[in-house]
Amino acid sequence: MTTKITALEVALQELHAVAEVMNLSDEVVGFLSEPQRVLAVNIPLRMDDGSTKYFKGYRSQHNQALGPARGGTRLHHHETMDDVKALSFWMTVKNSLAGIPSGGGKGGIAVDPLSLSAEELERLCRGYIRAIYPMLGPDQDVFGPDVGTPPQIMAWFLDEYETLLQRHQPCAFSGKPPLLGGSLGRDKATGYGLVYATRELLRQRGQALAGKTVAIQGFGNLGSVAAELFVRSGAKVVAVVDAYGGVYNPGGIDVPKAIALAKKTGTISGLGGCD
Amino acid sequence: MTTKITALEVALQELHAVAEVMNLSDEVVGFLSEPQRVLAVNIPLRMDDGSTKYFKGYRSQHNQALGPARGGTRLHHHETMDDVKALSFWMTVKNSLAGIPSGGGKGGIAVDPLSLSAEELERLCRGYIRAIYPMLGPDQDVFGPDVGTPPQIMAWFLDEYETLLQRHQPCAFSGKPPLLGGSLGRDKATGYGLVYATRELLRQRGQALAGKTVAIQGFGNLGSVAAELFVRSGAKVVAVVDAYGGVYNPGGIDVPKAIALAKKTGTISGLGGCD
Amino acid sequence: MTTKITALEVALQELHAVAEVMNLSDEVVGFLSEPQRVLAVNIPLRMDDGSTKYFKGYRSQHNQALGPARGGTRLHHHETMDDVKALSFWMTVKNSLAGIPSGGGKGGIAVDPLSLSAEELERLCRGYIRAIYPMLGPDQDVFGPDVGTPPQIMAWFLDEYETLLQRHQPCAFSGKPPLLGGSLGRDKATGYGLVYATRELLRQRGQALAGKTVAIQGFGNLGSVAAELFVRSGAKVVAVVDAYGGVYNPGGIDVPKAIALAKKTGTISGLGGCD
Amino acid sequence: MTTKITALEVALQELHAVAEVMNLSDEVVGFLSEPQRVLAVNIPLRMDDGSTKYFKGYRSQHNQALGPARGGTRLHHHETMDDVKALSFWMTVKNSLAGIPSGGGKGGIAVDPLSLSAEELERLCRGYIRAIYPMLGPDQDVFGPDVGTPPQIMAWFLDEYETLLQRHQPCAFSGKPPLLGGSLGRDKATGYGLVYATRELLRQRGQALAGKTVAIQGFGNLGSVAAELFVRSGAKVVAVVDAYGGVYNPGGIDVPKAIALAKKTGTISGLGGCD
Amino acid sequence: MTTKITALEVALQELHAVAEVMNLSDEVVGFLSEPQRVLAVNIPLRMDDGSTKYFKGYRSQHNQALGPARGGTRLHHHETMDDVKALSFWMTVKNSLAGIPSGGGKGGIAVDPLSLSAEELERLCRGYIRAIYPMLGPDQDVFGPDVGTPPQIMAWFLDEYETLLQRHQPCAFSGKPPLLGGSLGRDKATGYGLVYATRELLRQRGQALAGKTVAIQGFGNLGSVAAELFVRSGAKVVAVVDAYGGVYNPGGIDVPKAIALAKKTGTISGLGGCD
Amino acid sequence: MTTKITALEVALQELHAVAEVMNLSDEVVGFLSEPQRVLAVNIPLRMDDGSTKYFKGYRSQHNQALGPARGGTRLHHHETMDDVKALSFWMTVKNSLAGIPSGGGKGGIAVDPLSLSAEELERLCRGYIRAIYPMLGPDQDVFGPDVGTPPQIMAWFLDEYETLLQRHQPCAFSGKPPLLGGSLGRDKATGYGLVYATRELLRQRGQALAGKTVAIQGFGNLGSVAAELFVRSGAKVVAVVDAYGGVYNPGGIDVPKAIALAKKTGTISGLGGCD
Repeated sequence: MTTKITALEVALQELHAVAEVMNLSDEVVGFLSEPQRVLAVNIPLRMDDGSTKYFKGYRSQHNQALGPARGGTRLHHHETMDDVKALSFWMTVKNSLAGIPSGGGKGGIAVDPLSLSAEELERLCRGYIRAIYPMLGPDQDVFGPDVGTPPQIMAWFLDEYETLLQRHQPCAFSGKPPLLGGSLGRDKATGYGLVYATRELLRQRGQALAGKTVAIQGFGNLGSVAAELFVRSGAKVVAVVDAYGGVYNPGGIDVPKAIALAKKTGTISGLGGCD
Repeated sequence: MTTKITALEVALQELHAVAEVMNLSDEVVGFLSEPQRVLAVNIPLRMDDGSTKYFKGYRSQHNQALGPARGGTRLHHHETMDDVKALSFWMTVKNSLAGIPSGGGKGGIAVDPLSLSAEELERLCRGYIRAIYPMLGPDQDVFGPDVGTPPQIMAWFLDEYETLLQRHQPCAFSGKPPLLGGSLGRDKATGYGLVYATRELLRQRGQALAGKTVAIQGFGNLGSVAAELFVRSGAKVVAVVDAYGGVYNPGGIDVPKAIALAKKTGTISGLGGCD
Repeated sequence: MTTKITALEVALQELHAVAEVMNLSDEVVGFLSEPQRVLAVNIPLRMDDGSTKYFKGYRSQHNQALGPARGGTRLHHHETMDDVKALSFWMTVKNSLAGIPSGGGKGGIAVDPLSLSAEELERLCRGYIRAIYPMLGPDQDVFGPDVGTPPQIMAWFLDEYETLLQRHQPCAFSGKPPLLGGSLGRDKATGYGLVYATRELLRQRGQALAGKTVAIQGFGNLGSVAAELFVRSGAKVVAVVDAYGGVYNPGGIDVPKAIALAKKTGTISGLGGCD
Repeated sequence: MTTKITALEVALQELHAVAEVMNLSDEVVGFLSEPQRVLAVNIPLRMDDGSTKYFKGYRSQHNQALGPARGGTRLHHHETMDDVKALSFWMTVKNSLAGIPSGGGKGGIAVDPLSLSAEELERLCRGYIRAIYPMLGPDQDVFGPDVGTPPQIMAWFLDEYETLLQRHQPCAFSGKPPLLGGSLGRDKATGYGLVYATRELLRQRGQALAGKTVAIQGFGNLGSVAAELFVRSGAKVVAVVDAYGGVYNPGGIDVPKAIALAKKTGTISGLGGCD
Repeated sequence: MTTKITALEVALQELHAVAEVMNLSDEVVGFLSEPQRVLAVNIPLRMDDGSTKYFKGYRSQHNQALGPARGGTRLHHHETMDDVKALSFWMTVKNSLAGIPSGGGKGGIAVDPLSLSAEELERLCRGYIRAIYPMLGPDQDVFGPDVGTPPQIMAWFLDEYETLLQRHQPCAFSGKPPLLGGSLGRDKATGYGLVYATRELLRQRGQALAGKTVAIQGFGNLGSVAAELFVRSGAKVVAVVDAYGGVYNPGGIDVPKAIALAKKTGTISGLGGCD
Repeated sequence: MTTKITALEVALQELHAVAEVMNLSDEVVGFLSEPQRVLAVNIPLRMDDGSTKYFKGYRSQHNQALGPARGGTRLHHHETMDDVKALSFWMTVKNSLAGIPSGGGKGGIAVDPLSLSAEELERLCRGYIRAIYPMLGPDQDVFGPDVGTPPQIMAWFLDEYETLLQRHQPCAFSGKPPLLGGSLGRDKATGYGLVYATRELLRQRGQALAGKTVAIQGFGNLGSVAAELFVRSGAKVVAVVDAYGGVYNPGGIDVPKAIALAKKTGTISGLGGCD
């Protein structure tokens, strides 16, 4: 059995490698190797059957030198504090390289959303906001969507936040539904961004997307949108895996059919015409 | 080499043992086995030589069911998040058993206070308060003294807190100097409490303190005050250890002399007339 | 059919009658004849069956000249805005005559608590607090218990208030359970007060409680406690009515038995040995 | 004499009629048939002669699902709580249909502004803001002008609000003078909007404004501006009524003359060349 | 003409004299020779005749090392910033010597209260509070009464403060009427304190008050109360001066008569039986 | 020796002169002749040698009729309260004439920045913000740069303000570095503005900048930038003075060389090729 390297170890290795290349001082490395603030909370959830269970929630504000922390919130079964620390580090790097006047943040709840009823999921999301409330706000830490946090969940986050604040403050969250002030096109932005970045990378190497074969890991909001644009850009999606299984077709997967299946069953496992 | 059991593992073992005896439900155990909120911070400290170092600080609010969290703050080289989680669990237990309308909390900074100059120590303490400020306050979490946090440090904590709050609020901290509103006798309370509790325990067993021999681990504010009262109560202090060494004299250590030495050198190592 | 006079009309008639006796100016009467602030809210309640119903809630701050408003909160099927206005007027009068540095307040929700499940009732109480939150607080308006608001409900009120406030503030509510800071004896205070006041009234007329016959309207926390003390004071409780029926026994009702029945069934209807 | 239907009854009838057409659920109707919050206040006013009178003020926040409440403030002799509830319902409908990210609100004071001196009116307006202050703010409820609230009154509202808030916040009020941050053209916006909407309505029916005859009810900021634009658009204003009387001229009223008269006397009653 | 020494110069001379005696460091003298914060404001006052005049107001928070600033507020024609600075210095000294956990503060308005109508005076007092509001509060700076600030004025201060704060906070002001939470006996406390201190001083010198002659400067709340107790203690009041004149009677002034005259006319000038 | 006229006397003379020309009422003059609020603070500074010194700081909010106060902050050895009052008056005039929706403010610290180490200067700037914090904020008083407050100092101001506020609020300060949200070109704006205004003035008189001779008083951020643009516009800079001396060359000073010298030595004194 091989030793598994955690995301946090990867992030720190990257930091140290870059520090050597850029000749960064120990002070800068020390500043970047730990989040400025990480909060871990224990969220009680009254289940539909009347019992109470507890779920762990996290929020890491990695760095606020350039502005409020900013980053997504994940609902994922195996979420750990080290994961959100690593992911928030990368948000600091991404936001600063993109010239966004924000620092890096990331949060999450260790839960498999599919294991809860809609009512339980709503109560858990509201409990998370009540627990991490003192860290949150448009000038402190802006929460975005990520794995497991579609617009409905961002709407619950926002509504609970505004209830606690006793006034409207939609800019504390991105990824909320357009009706509540969310950006149009937000649902496709990450997937499109991936395809556009890939296209630019190929262009710099004198190549084109058209005719390339693509394998996609994850088929939620990001993966499915990217798959659809890859196909429209002339590439061929030959493999898709999600949390429940994978499909492979060297001749190209029927992406619209895969999207329809995922929407219906929550997974692309069992897609016809593939291995 | 034997495996070391952490304080947190001990605390959880105790909780599960008690749960079995008291037949506690999973819901109660789930509520008590994780703090409601734990905050970890990365505190920058500008050193006297102009460089910047980083120190880890923590605050665990274990449980607030009976009132605001309440518990000490430790400055200790090997402080970890798991330690403050364990210690805050015990504060929840202690406060509730003593009928105090407070929950349990505990915090700390991973630093050896003796390794810093007084100016560096003050700046570090102020930086800790700035970093954990949103958790703090008389109705949220009351900080007390503990290992490495004598009245002067509590005064720095209080002053920085009041500076951020822009008004006076001395009740956010216990253990501050009497001139700033601290309780008279607070400096001897923990040491006296230890001796009084020991005396009561012996009395219940039909014994007396007088004539007993005592070994003391730690010789700071707690240990030295207890040693002095043990002696006045007729017991004989035969051994003392602190972080730097230990002394042993089966005929009884000269406690006033040991206190004077510790005040001067910071340790009882090298006390004359002992092994 | 006779015309019904509302509580508010009674209150205003009393005010005008007193104004004539005391020769109060129009300015004073104008100040006392309307509450300074009345808030009406529409509270959504998600029912256990998944549907949503709406309930009307009120809070009247009649007068704050002598201090924060202070008064009970009623859960009653026929609660109206005019009722809480009238009741808050009487609280202004009562608090000022008793020398309490508080003004008068009163609130309520138009609901029959017995028509809801415990979970629905809790959600409704929390929704009420979220809706009237900006009026509430120890220095603005202190909520007490009244018809339909036993300690458990005051605990839900307090918990929701503290969740919104994000800190502990038990003094915003009276009537909460002692474990959460409620006064010992609070459960018996209103009933005992009634008996003590009756006793004083009789004493001024040269009479004694012992041997008197008593009829009691309502048999909740107030009525049952009073009944028990009337009996211990030598009086005879011959009749009790509650919202569901009444019992009559000229020889004296067995009060401990009646209390036990009410605790079990929620009403004294059907008490043996009575008409 | 016929029974008068109140504005609130009309509003509810409309809601129920629409609910039938649109097949709205009881939950939606329940949500829309009562304001989320209505506040009634009793405002003391020290009169110029040294006496104190009391005036009733209201603010209804009908619905905040789409954003902060938003709507006008009326100073009108016969203002009632039911009127502001009805008017705030219509603001919810209007704002949502117009795609404005705001809910509906409406407020008012039951007073005839012409019955007060300018100093009394200023003090009353400031007293209203002090009384309803906790409901107000750019992210909670934005107050606009309406009947009886010209820019000078909005300026008093704003100044008192900023005094209480202890900082500038002009966006809490619309309709303030341009010098204090009000929109240019705001004084003509409602009147122009009326004419533009009428013109569009006619256009959809294949007709034009030119040549039409117009009767105008009310000749304050709205009516007089609309009258002037109707005339410039080729229509003929044949009748005007205001709170003090009416004039009729089938050949067309001289609108500039009427405006000049209204500015001087406060009414168009007695306009020459009309009945 | 002789050069006048200001109160501030006297205060600083005292500080430097004491510093020499006590061997105070420059750092301590530097800390005590300037207030930590002094605020000067320009208060507009709408006069009864419709015009607007401007009055200067001040508040000096001399030192907050031991707790919130605390000290009186003077309404005096010749009030200057230097005067309040000097007086606040003496409050720091007085509070710390008396062991009160407060620093020193002092404020004032440069106005002759007798030159204003009661309505103007109330508006000026409210304007002063609005202007210095950010400095004020029970944990920042507690305002007491002083020259020209009887309980009615403290009540206006308190009412305006609570209006801005939107909740009750009587402990921000001392000297308010007992009905609003003021201490009983507050009106006589300063005058009695003067007589008691004089009596103690004499006792230390082996003398008694009885038979001594007393001259009193100022005959407001302090002077008249002291005069009355001096007489009851057996001393003889032979001279009184106030802002409008003075009276002298070597045989002893009739103090009750003088008090009655001052209450009626605002001055003891013209008291019969005196020079 | 001649009597020196202070800036405040000049400002008041200008106000009275303008008042006569414009026929301003006494009420307007009274409103403009004193700042609405002036705060003076005593700032402790721990020096690098361990001692503590005290520095006087000021902030004048002259007038907020048109919006929050706005104006620069000066670090200057001879700063006085009267100077900041005068300068804030001129800011009220400048902002209103330029149509900026802000009032006038100005602040400063009486210190020679060159007499402190960088660490001392940073601590002093942070101490100033802590002392004047209650006056500050984007809706109350916006601080800009001025004499002695380059971007680094504005960054310290901003960082300390955000630490106290516990969230990001860059709009409370102008003149901060672009990386922290400062405007691009802010460093040259004042100097360029001077040259553009001069050019316009000359154009109105039918003249051109080209060929004119220029003398410049002050050679910091304003003077050096203006000098450089004057030269590029064809004018000849013949004289420059700064706080340490002056240089004169009728043939034209070599401005780039002067700038380089000033950057290196802090003064243009000793520039070669000049008198």
